[in-house]
This record gives sequence, structure tokens and C-alpha cells, in this order.
Amino acid sequence: MIKIFIFVLILACLPLSGLYSKTNEEQQSEFGIVIHGGAGGITRESYTPEQDAAYREALSEALRVGYEILKNGGNSLEAVESAIRIMEDDSLFNAGRGAVFTADGKNELDASIMDGSTLNAGAVAGVTRIKNPITLARLVMEESRHVMFAREGAEVFGDQHGIETVPEDYFFTERRWRTLQRIQEREAAEERGGTVGAAALDKNGNLAAGTSTGGMSNKRFGRIGDSPIIGAGTYANNKTCAVSATGHGEYFIRLSVAYDISALMEYKGLSLREAGDRVVMEKLPDIGGYGGVIAIDQFGNIAMPFTTAGMHRGYVLDDGEFVVKLYGDE
Amino acid sequence: MIKIFIFVLILACLPLSGLYSKTNEEQQSEFGIVIHGGAGGITRESYTPEQDAAYREALSEALRVGYEILKNGGNSLEAVESAIRIMEDDSLFNAGRGAVFTADGKNELDASIMDGSTLNAGAVAGVTRIKNPITLARLVMEESRHVMFAREGAEVFGDQHGIETVPEDYFFTERRWRTLQRIQEREAAEERGGTVGAAALDKNGNLAAGTSTGGMSNKRFGRIGDSPIIGAGTYANNKTCAVSATGHGEYFIRLSVAYDISALMEYKGLSLREAGDRVVMEKLPDIGGYGGVIAIDQFGNIAMPFTTAGMHRGYVLDDGEFVVKLYGDE
Repeated sequence: MIKIFIFVLILACLPLSGLYSKTNEEQQSEFGIVIHGGAGGITRESYTPEQDAAYREALSEALRVGYEILKNGGNSLEAVESAIRIMEDDSLFNAGRGAVFTADGKNELDASIMDGSTLNAGAVAGVTRIKNPITLARLVMEESRHVMFAREGAEVFGDQHGIETVPEDYFFTERRWRTLQRIQEREAAEERGGTVGAAALDKNGNLAAGTSTGGMSNKRFGRIGDSPIIGAGTYANNKTCAVSATGHGEYFIRLSVAYDISALMEYKGLSLREAGDRVVMEKLPDIGGYGGVIAIDQFGNIAMPFTTAGMHRGYVLDDGEFVVKLYGDE
Repeated sequence: MIKIFIFVLILACLPLSGLYSKTNEEQQSEFGIVIHGGAGGITRESYTPEQDAAYREALSEALRVGYEILKNGGNSLEAVESAIRIMEDDSLFNAGRGAVFTADGKNELDASIMDGSTLNAGAVAGVTRIKNPITLARLVMEESRHVMFAREGAEVFGDQHGIETVPEDYFFTERRWRTLQRIQEREAAEERGGTVGAAALDKNGNLAAGTSTGGMSNKRFGRIGDSPIIGAGTYANNKTCAVSATGHGEYFIRLSVAYDISALMEYKGLSLREAGDRVVMEKLPDIGGYGGVIAIDQFGNIAMPFTTAGMHRGYVLDDGEFVVKLYGDE
């Protein structure tokens, strides 16, 4: 009788402890990088075989660059920045070159980066002539006493540090321009997706994350989404995980999505996957939001939850096996 | 023997449950509002008796306006906005009229507001001709499909909704101009403090919070601090608490300070006061940051932790007793 009582008591205490849910606490991989190229209405039906192949190739190239850095002992911050630069330079993605257009036909780019070993962070919002906003975000983190700069202030800071600039028409891509026209003619819901991000663990156990975007197609002049908001679109902390988000940014800001995943791990003892699912698959839809995140924890566990039809995504760990996926059913 | 074992087992489980730390879970007050007017080097020695009296009077007036709204059954959002408008209109505070100057002699104002009943939020960053940025933040929340606007984009949106604007010299105050000169001549650390904020609980159990600031004296053009960042400077959630922060904003962004207090309550079962102390008195100094927050929870408990010499602060609950404090030793 007493034994049963003790047993019941132990059972009763377990759910409170949070410990029951910790999994994969052994090192799964010495290092690794996980990336996304945006979440949205990404289905087999919506892509031609050529588009399918192009996205897989572009994601693989970004992963390859990050993997080489990490394998050679480079740090996670470098891997994150370099992988994101590849995607910024590729017009397939809504970041850098392929940025979507605002409601008044401009391109306004946002980016942020965070170093999980120091909790240092940098972010830029609404820049219009910076080739690689993720690199400017890193400059803000490393060379300024501030965390975030907006618009011309960000560009003046970049100029002072010799950042590479481009004429505004660098960001003019026929495909994104047509998207804007279609949205404005139909007065349809804006197309989203194509934001890029990366999160990495290096051989020294340091985590880093970064995100870069052209924002929402047809967004209003001056709108800032979650991508440049530390804690919403980007978060990294060596104690827990590194996260980059993509989706309808307004909801990600309201939920502090990226930090919330870390908080659930630190305060409730959830695993990376459980924390990611709780925030993306439960809390986000609860307030009407949608999108996804990619994340890696200090043990090399990976999570890539999303609520949309698909998400451009991929990862590579120390085994060197590249995994790239686009659709929800793979 | 078995009884002792059970007792030890219960003790062992308690710290894991988080429940041990919940306090003041009974309704302390039907409604209430707590405000701040900035944290910093605020000491008895640094203020003349006239300045001391002026700050106490200004804080009392803001509290009185919020109290009347709440007592008459008005909602917490209205109380927060109204209390902050009083402080924005008073040149004593670094918000609205009394905004400090940027490094190039301009005024750039930030504000944000959040509704704890819906998790809706609005924010503006870097506006230069809006009389009451907190009201523009509320307009963004209620009248746009976005959460955050920066600079001209925020002002264009405000113009379209008939927001009150002022010429830029409205924000020229002799005192703040002299502060900038002093900082630039000495190349001293920038003076901070004077940001304003409010958090309120209404009779329907709804929480709301808001923050408004002129930023840091001598800040660089385009810098965005924590005040317009939902989750960093401002957060409200009916499940937990409403929070407004003030201090060295970069550190508040990196720690997602306002949301972290809520997360510690929700995920670890900490009381409002314990959560506030953990974040402001422990985690913030750990990374070299300083400042304070004001907060109220759904039971009408108040917390006002700060690490600086003083913080302009005050609250009033349903007993109608106004409490106003400036220094660390009161």
C-alpha cells in the first residue's frame, strides 16, 4: 500500500519537474548548421522540376559553405553569416538580391544576427542599398555600441565601415515585381516566404543564429517585421539553442518566438524539438499566425517545425550528410 | 522510516515543481497602475528641492489620470496611453517634449504598447515630428496590419490617421541640449534615463503596458533601443503580467527583458516580484547592463526593481493611495 503511494507520488511529481521531457541530451553532433529559405505555400504542384532543383541546389550551396567553415574549426557566427550571404546573393530568396517590393515599389531589407556565447547581437531594419544586410548586422554587433539601427542611420554606419553597397536597381527582379503587381491587382493577401536564416553550432560549443529578409511583398513603407528583432526572428544562447524564424512576422513579434523556444528549454526543461513544436505548432496558430523556424541546440539536435505547406530548409551535421527539403510531405 | 522517505521525496520534488515560489496569488487589488519616468543616477544630492517636488508632482499627475480611468471602469490600454501622454507632454521626462538629442543634434522618438488580453501590439521607432508617440503606437496596433513602423513610414501612417504633429523645434529643450554638449565635450558616457512607461490592470482583469522614449542622449542616427521592441521594453499578457522597462536598452534587447519576466512566471511559477528580481537584479548585471522595470500582474501585485541609484516611479491601486518614489533609499 505504502509502496503504491510512493509510486503514485513519484508519478505526480514527474510532470512538474519538467525533467521527463528532456531528450537527446547526449552530444548528437560535434558541429552543425541548419538553414531556411522561407516558409509558405511551397508545394510540389507549385514548382516546376527546374524550380525544385534550383532551390535544392541553392540551399545545398549555402549549407556547403557553412559546413566547410565549421568542419575546419571556424566559428558558428562565421558559418551563419556566410551561409546567409550565399542566399542573399541568390535571387531565388526574399533577402538581399531577391527582396520583394513594398507597396510603393521599393525594396527595404532587414537582418539580424546573435552570438550565443556572449549574447551580443546586431540588427538593421529598412536598408535600401546594402548588398548583404546580414554582414551589416554583424558590423553593428561588433563595431558599434548599439544593437539595432534603422534605415539611413544603418546605411551611414555601414558607409563608415566600408560595407559593400549597390544601386537600388540591384534589387529589381522581374519575378518579385510581378508578384507585387499580382497582389495589388487582386487585392489578395500578400505572398510571403523566402526569408532566409541560419543557425549553427561550432566545435567549441558556441551557437549563433541569423536572419535576413526583404520583408513582406506589398508591405507598407517603413514596416518592420520580426527578422531584425532579437528575440522574435533571431535568438542564440549557448545555454539552450540558436533559432531563426520565417513567416508572418507580426505574430512572431507578439510571441517573442525565437526567445520563447529558448525559455521553454531553460525554464521548463523541454527538448529543442518539444519547445519548437510548442511555440510554432501550438502558440503561433492560437493567435492566427503561421510560419516556421529552424533551430539547433548545444548537443547538435535539429528542429525545423512549420505550419505552412512547405519550408525551404536543410541541415548538415558532423557526418557530412546534406539534408535538403522543400515540401511538407518530405 | 517509510514516512521519512515520503517526506524527503516530497521535499525533493517541491523545488522542481516551481509551485513553492508562487506568492500573492489572491487578488490584491481590483485594478491598478504602475509607472516609471526613467532610471539612472537619480539621488537626493543630484536634485534640488524644486526638482524633487516637480518630479513627484508630474508622476502623481500621470498616476491620477490613469487611476480615474481605471476606477471608472475604463480599460487598462486607455489608462496606460493616457498616463504616458501626460509624461510625454512634460519636458521633465525623456519622452515626447523632453526627448534627448542624438549625436547629430536631432530628436528621434520611440514608443510601443501591448494589449495583454489579445497580445496585440504596436510600435514606432525614430519618429521626429509626432507629439505623442505612444498614441501613434496604439494607432499602429489598432489601425494597421503591422506591429512596427520606423521613421518616415511611421509618420506617413500617422498623417493618414490624423495624428497630431509638431514642428521639430517643439522637442528643443535647453536642458537636453546642454546635456548633449556636456556629453560630447567630455566624451563621457552618455547620460541615460527619463524614458517613461506604464503598466495597468483594469476591473475586467485585462493587463496592458506601454513605453515611450527619446532614446539615449548622444545616440547615433537611426539607433533603435528597447523601448519600441515588443518583448524587450514592453510586454503584456493577461496570463502573467504587464511590464515596461527603462535603462541601457541594448542589454534589454539582448535579454528580451520584458517577455522574460512573463516567461519566468508562466514556465517556472515565479511570483511577479521574484521574476522581476531575477531578470533585473541578476541576469541584467550579469551581462553588464543596468536599469529597471515596473510591472503589475493579474492579481494587482506590483514590482519596481532597478539596479541604478534611483528610478522615477509610482503606483496606485484600488485603495486610492498614491505612492511616488525617486531614490533608491525610499
